[in-house]
Amino acid sequence: MSLLVVGSIAYDSIQTDSGSVKNALGGSAIHFSAASSFFAPTRIVGVVGEDFQKDELKFLIERNVDISGIVTERGKTFRWSGRYHADMNERDTLRTELNVFEHFRPEIPDSYKDSEYLFLANINPELQLEVLEQVHKPAFAALDTMNFWIEGSRSELLAVLKRVDGVILNDTEAQQFSGEHNLAKAAKAIARHGPMIVVIKKGEHGSILYHNDSFFVLPAFLLKSVTDPTGAGDSFAGGFMGYLAQQKNLSNGTLRLAMAYGTCIASFCCEGFGTLRLAAMEKEDTAKRLAVFQKLVDFS
Amino acid sequence: MSLLVVGSIAYDSIQTDSGSVKNALGGSAIHFSAASSFFAPTRIVGVVGEDFQKDELKFLIERNVDISGIVTERGKTFRWSGRYHADMNERDTLRTELNVFEHFRPEIPDSYKDSEYLFLANINPELQLEVLEQVHKPAFAALDTMNFWIEGSRSELLAVLKRVDGVILNDTEAQQFSGEHNLAKAAKAIARHGPMIVVIKKGEHGSILYHNDSFFVLPAFLLKSVTDPTGAGDSFAGGFMGYLAQQKNLSNGTLRLAMAYGTCIASFCCEGFGTLRLAAMEKEDTAKRLAVFQKLVDFS
Repeated sequence: MSLLVVGSIAYDSIQTDSGSVKNALGGSAIHFSAASSFFAPTRIVGVVGEDFQKDELKFLIERNVDISGIVTERGKTFRWSGRYHADMNERDTLRTELNVFEHFRPEIPDSYKDSEYLFLANINPELQLEVLEQVHKPAFAALDTMNFWIEGSRSELLAVLKRVDGVILNDTEAQQFSGEHNLAKAAKAIARHGPMIVVIKKGEHGSILYHNDSFFVLPAFLLKSVTDPTGAGDSFAGGFMGYLAQQKNLSNGTLRLAMAYGTCIASFCCEGFGTLRLAAMEKEDTAKRLAVFQKLVDFS
Repeated sequence: MSLLVVGSIAYDSIQTDSGSVKNALGGSAIHFSAASSFFAPTRIVGVVGEDFQKDELKFLIERNVDISGIVTERGKTFRWSGRYHADMNERDTLRTELNVFEHFRPEIPDSYKDSEYLFLANINPELQLEVLEQVHKPAFAALDTMNFWIEGSRSELLAVLKRVDGVILNDTEAQQFSGEHNLAKAAKAIARHGPMIVVIKKGEHGSILYHNDSFFVLPAFLLKSVTDPTGAGDSFAGGFMGYLAQQKNLSNGTLRLAMAYGTCIASFCCEGFGTLRLAAMEKEDTAKRLAVFQKLVDFS
């Protein structure tokens, strides 16, 4: 089934203990679709500047990602630069240049309006709401958000939460939004605002799913070396949503496998800078890693 | 098979967001044996002061814990008091009074010297070595340690590590000892010093097993409410070692189930102050929680 993602497209400059990269292709919509496209035809809505090299998206087009919803505006592409600590859960943002992303106003092309699965990556909740108004009737819509909107646009965020089926956010965001430190309590508190599915990402510590008043917990894939965690959360969301779109159901078993696929693809993402590793992956790699992951966590 | 634990016996005064308790029975040897005794007959070596109320150990005796190795010295029992943050991974020690524990010099009673499984809880590595000299020939010996010894008694610690089969320590200790932030690298680095089995505990984020050049990762049991995490790590170790002693083998499957049992018992520990919940548990509770845990993490 068709899957639409609305989010950022960026050039990221990243420093980690493994090295550094300048102006690497990034952004939530890119990481998401690099992952989701292994499972379901994916459509992107986003904005880039005149400096953007569209041929960098070739690997996505080859995976049937529809990039016709990416518009080019006058000015420069969104740029972010940051430096990770040795503890890669911590990073310092060195510079954020929103550029054309500052006035991003997502317009959904007519050919995208029938999208059955929709992921609203981390953008202003007012814009997320505008996207929901434009898409006809998605079977499943989920959103991501961040501290900035939780703090500054809570009422707008609450309005979108009422309209989506799922939310995928990280542990500190879940705690901040709910005021609960315990993640089981945080997940329940978020679900009370609307979404029937709450996914809390804990980075290298795994993830938690809350659905139908029951929980599922999953460790992360243990990597012997992490090159760059940038985009891991978005590629997790891409694997998760892509698998749901492929399976066309929201059974407990499907949701759990979707979490596992998201975990596996996020682990690939961390093995290279930016989208390098995701771009080099083959579809079979996801199933192979899932098999390794199943052995890694099995105690039956 | 017989299991011997050598460690602390304490009165803990604890404050958490759930409340507080004064002079609650605690210490590594107590939490450990409260857990291990569900699986294997356990023997304790430790020291208490004249103020110690031995009838508080009744629940252990009823579970076939041999407390004849607990000696009473002139003076007061080890006392610790601390306050946990809302993020229970963080705590402040308010006061430590070593009292009789300061000059603890473990003497293994003759009747304990045939113990086949041995756990050296967190004490001075020189004393751990003395215990190893006294026990005839344990089939499996493991140790725990802490930042204080890693920093101040590294060569003594290295000497004990050479002589044990397993080590069970927490993530920050593993990182400090190895100088590696990545826990897979840290586990391998520790194993290079001797122990064939390395268990890294991550508190609410689960645990990692390294054995035979392969890894096993496990999330923690998701608790909807944590009353007091004091002793969770020691009760994890007790469940782990107790199950190994019961099964009398170190197969991959046994080690993994031992981790799962350790996880489940640690979760019970967190549900009450001190040893309250562990003391109130029944043997069947461990199997019941394991079944719930298996469902919680299953994505087959």
